[in-house]
Amino acid sequence: MRHVISAIVENKPGVLAHIAGLFAGRGFNIDSLAVGETEDLARSRLTVVARGDDAVLEQVRKQLAKIIDVIKVVDFAGADTVERDLMLIKVAVSPDRRGEIFEIVEVFRGKVVDIGAKHLTLEVSGPEKKIEAFVDLMKPYGIKELVRTGRVALARGG
Amino acid sequence: MRHVISAIVENKPGVLAHIAGLFAGRGFNIDSLAVGETEDLARSRLTVVARGDDAVLEQVRKQLAKIIDVIKVVDFAGADTVERDLMLIKVAVSPDRRGEIFEIVEVFRGKVVDIGAKHLTLEVSGPEKKIEAFVDLMKPYGIKELVRTGRVALARGG
Repeated sequence: MRHVISAIVENKPGVLAHIAGLFAGRGFNIDSLAVGETEDLARSRLTVVARGDDAVLEQVRKQLAKIIDVIKVVDFAGADTVERDLMLIKVAVSPDRRGEIFEIVEVFRGKVVDIGAKHLTLEVSGPEKKIEAFVDLMKPYGIKELVRTGRVALARGG
Repeated sequence: MRHVISAIVENKPGVLAHIAGLFAGRGFNIDSLAVGETEDLARSRLTVVARGDDAVLEQVRKQLAKIIDVIKVVDFAGADTVERDLMLIKVAVSPDRRGEIFEIVEVFRGKVVDIGAKHLTLEVSGPEKKIEAFVDLMKPYGIKELVRTGRVALARGG
């Protein structure tokens, strides 16, 4: 099963290495990991998407919760959440075919962030599947490079 | 100085722990870290934002490049890049004041992703400073929680 684990942690050197080590120690590969600032400078919030055995992942979650610098851990598996991922993608395209890409960007509510004679760099955000659908649409043009933030999530409701 | 390091790595357990350990070993705190999929399932792309001594960070970059599972490393410090961060933020707001927030979201080209009697969940993306300006504008309403992906970057130009 796919798990989305969200943890609020102290913003200190070593905390991330500790957490990444916990996953690696169990042989878990991480699909995505996002670590960003919160409204409190002393704390970061970390979102991990991992697939694997539910029981083993539950052990990892419990071990996470025991780390002194981990303030709170939630596993969103099965919960009603809003999930978002952001991608920057550089696509090879000549000026005469740019219009086609602009149309797709419009449908995906994306943004054009850089433009050149032979390329466009685009920003697209949304759930994982939307990002993947966009990547598939860009493949025929030629993807020069792309980078994704990985998923972040919040529970729905107040 | 602020450094944005981008690395393409093999998508294997342990690689992330190894990299996080390199930063931690030098006492470097990471402002943000984003690890996401690329167009090649076997590879992930990792973006780290860290501040600190240039010479020490250059050593870390060289050590990174020596890891067998690290395919490519770039330090974007001083380069012309497009940088983006995505935030989900849940704000306390009663229905009579929602309109004020909708106006701000419109200016920031953000999106309303969840709505309830006492809250709104919003999605905003952009450069770091834009995200921070948005957070400041939401503070008077009451921030219930927020999560950020951390920065991703691509070089400008083809």
